[in-house]
Amino acid sequence: LSASPSAPAVFFLSDYGTADEFVGVVHAVLHDLAPLVPVIDLSHQVPPFDVAAGSALLQRSAPFLGAGVVLAVVDPGVGTSRRAVAIETTPAGGPTWLVGPDNGLLVATAELLGGAEAAIALTPEGRAWPGSGRVTEGSGPTFDGRDVFAPAAAHLVRGGDPSVLGPAIDPGSLTPGPDPPTAAVDGGGAGEGWAVTTSVASVDRFGNLQLGIRPRLLEESGLFVGPVEVTVSTGPGPGPGPGPVPARRVVAFGELAEGELGLVADASGRVALVLDRDSAAARLGVTGPGAEVRISLPRRGPG
Amino acid sequence: LSASPSAPAVFFLSDYGTADEFVGVVHAVLHDLAPLVPVIDLSHQVPPFDVAAGSALLQRSAPFLGAGVVLAVVDPGVGTSRRAVAIETTPAGGPTWLVGPDNGLLVATAELLGGAEAAIALTPEGRAWPGSGRVTEGSGPTFDGRDVFAPAAAHLVRGGDPSVLGPAIDPGSLTPGPDPPTAAVDGGGAGEGWAVTTSVASVDRFGNLQLGIRPRLLEESGLFVGPVEVTVSTGPGPGPGPGPVPARRVVAFGELAEGELGLVADASGRVALVLDRDSAAARLGVTGPGAEVRISLPRRGPG
Amino acid sequence: LSASPSAPAVFFLSDYGTADEFVGVVHAVLHDLAPLVPVIDLSHQVPPFDVAAGSALLQRSAPFLGAGVVLAVVDPGVGTSRRAVAIETTPAGGPTWLVGPDNGLLVATAELLGGAEAAIALTPEGRAWPGSGRVTEGSGPTFDGRDVFAPAAAHLVRGGDPSVLGPAIDPGSLTPGPDPPTAAVDGGGAGEGWAVTTSVASVDRFGNLQLGIRPRLLEESGLFVGPVEVTVSTGPGPGPGPGPVPARRVVAFGELAEGELGLVADASGRVALVLDRDSAAARLGVTGPGAEVRISLPRRGPG
Repeated sequence: LSASPSAPAVFFLSDYGTADEFVGVVHAVLHDLAPLVPVIDLSHQVPPFDVAAGSALLQRSAPFLGAGVVLAVVDPGVGTSRRAVAIETTPAGGPTWLVGPDNGLLVATAELLGGAEAAIALTPEGRAWPGSGRVTEGSGPTFDGRDVFAPAAAHLVRGGDPSVLGPAIDPGSLTPGPDPPTAAVDGGGAGEGWAVTTSVASVDRFGNLQLGIRPRLLEESGLFVGPVEVTVSTGPGPGPGPGPVPARRVVAFGELAEGELGLVADASGRVALVLDRDSAAARLGVTGPGAEVRISLPRRGPG
Repeated sequence: LSASPSAPAVFFLSDYGTADEFVGVVHAVLHDLAPLVPVIDLSHQVPPFDVAAGSALLQRSAPFLGAGVVLAVVDPGVGTSRRAVAIETTPAGGPTWLVGPDNGLLVATAELLGGAEAAIALTPEGRAWPGSGRVTEGSGPTFDGRDVFAPAAAHLVRGGDPSVLGPAIDPGSLTPGPDPPTAAVDGGGAGEGWAVTTSVASVDRFGNLQLGIRPRLLEESGLFVGPVEVTVSTGPGPGPGPGPVPARRVVAFGELAEGELGLVADASGRVALVLDRDSAAARLGVTGPGAEVRISLPRRGPG
Repeated sequence: LSASPSAPAVFFLSDYGTADEFVGVVHAVLHDLAPLVPVIDLSHQVPPFDVAAGSALLQRSAPFLGAGVVLAVVDPGVGTSRRAVAIETTPAGGPTWLVGPDNGLLVATAELLGGAEAAIALTPEGRAWPGSGRVTEGSGPTFDGRDVFAPAAAHLVRGGDPSVLGPAIDPGSLTPGPDPPTAAVDGGGAGEGWAVTTSVASVDRFGNLQLGIRPRLLEESGLFVGPVEVTVSTGPGPGPGPGPVPARRVVAFGELAEGELGLVADASGRVALVLDRDSAAARLGVTGPGAEVRISLPRRGPG
């Protein structure tokens, strides 16, 4: 099957929720300024103001996005002096521009897409600003998704000249992304007390706990042979929580017995702590990212 | 008004929710492989792993779908040996293919669309697999919506050769759908103790209880003349619950007095137990499908 | 940058939620009858039956919608004698028709779009009704979004002859919209006890409380100079609640200290009561529209 060249799209992520009109109004502005361009919603349920969660969601999505522009708005600093930016990348087939606030939301994904080659500080007061005049009379500077980011994304996805959007800035001056989840290996050789300490990167709808490590780390630590134990804190950092609880490295959920904890390579290429057809988050009392997870070989009895 | 021939679309149903990036990533893959084809979301709020609820939602939607492909993913067995399938139907104007797991999710809808004429077992390892190479390095077999079903749906909606997707299988070997809601009629002639026992098939956002019977059954049972009584269990099967409660067969919600229970023919051609501008589910303490509902003539006083 | 003429779209608002198939089925009908027309969802999370909330959401969206048709369904009277209508407006670039129930949902938005120039009572039994024959056999008159409003919207957005949809009616006979939020000014000159009493018009996802006043009113009342106090009831109308609480008029959220209440001009050109990166609704115990808010100059101590 021959692949047709991908038609550019806008990939839209926010913490706007869908109870208000915010997402719909941004779609309306995008449709007005770039009528033939599809808009694909990644999610609008990022927890309000949670830049780290938005950044993680965008990173997980990045490998599957085609040509076009990422429009991402999780923006607790709207209306302050934080910059509004467009970052140019050099992906192999993915989005070429990322548009949003300069607060760390975009940088890690730009790295995944080939690196931030160039950047622009968006200046909505510019003379050629597309969409100028649409702002409701008397409205305040509180909806940059509608008034600044969507017009810029529409302009870029249509192939417009980036330089009319604002001055070039040094990509090295962009606010770095949030720290990735931790992962530390301690102990001796395989079978002699190896352990991996990491943290929950995200919790999905099914209660699967994505951890901050890749399967290769478990393999190298000898923790893929036979059963292991996991100790989990119920809040950010170490702390009270269940464990040690037996768990097992499996390839698919279906290998697990009812109620048995498993470690799988998930859809993003990370290790996830899961139950088959049930919520590991509920079982372990984990309510969100940050909980510390320690994976170790089971302690042996005096035998 | 002349009807233009319907442009094919992908009709997408899942239990993915919208808090994670799953739905957005599947849209991105569909857009990449079939850029000009609209994707219409039926719902992504099917309760996690609830194949029966997904099947019911798909059946209710089926009469209103145009040409194209149904992509449905409620898949507790992902990663096991359950088959991934594409089912070909012969509808009069509706979708021609249904793509998803072979776990009963699709079969009842295939029947509604003219019957399963042919079926294919999807083999993602096939040589011509569209979208191969997109899977993240190191990712596990846990996201068939993205890696198997969406590429197959995109291929079929573009009119691609089905045989490249995998071997033909016997449609008779497909896993049957979940049992439909029960309906039993007992008692004598009209006015002499007729009763219909059925169950709640689904509960919608407004708290309307869709029952497992069609209006014709009530008419034939003499239960459409004058008032009736309903007895409702609060959980699956018979059990404690309110009742008998007076109810009345009406054509429209607006005929009901405040707080009066009604039996209406709903938008899917089923009988629904409703209140006007209020939630029958909340009033009767029903939280989901399965509750038993008995509709009978009111008992007469000694008069 | 030259603006291309806006391609017409359908702008879709409802109280259907997204857990059921209602929204998806309406999209499918629209796609069937107007295949090339984009459908932009404003929101489907309007509280069930809440015409006032739907009207407010539509009014907030209106200035940002392009050419096309508004399809709005919050319809507690479905199946009664309430009329189904299409209202023609004369906007400068916005939607030309509004389609929905004649229950006050549409009228205030029609005013914002240039006024209701003409109106039609939709008669689904009409001879040329598009989409006739699609209704499931035996289904009741409970889903006018699918069976009446969507076909009419599709017909109008394609430029069809409005007169086939039903007879013209007097726009003056349309049911008026809900009363707007109240706003009253009392007291003396600036600095001598001025106060504004208004109510919460809506609460957004971030917990910002949109009030029923525009920034100009505060300016004219002398309440923009220096600190003010706000007194808030926790339910509709006056009543128990926190206050008086100090607040400050600011241009942007970022000017506020942690926990400090602010009054900003919001994205719709209204005054909103907010916290920076936190929920004013949660802080003040406000759960929905209607709570009374009094803004006054702080009482002075004995000096």
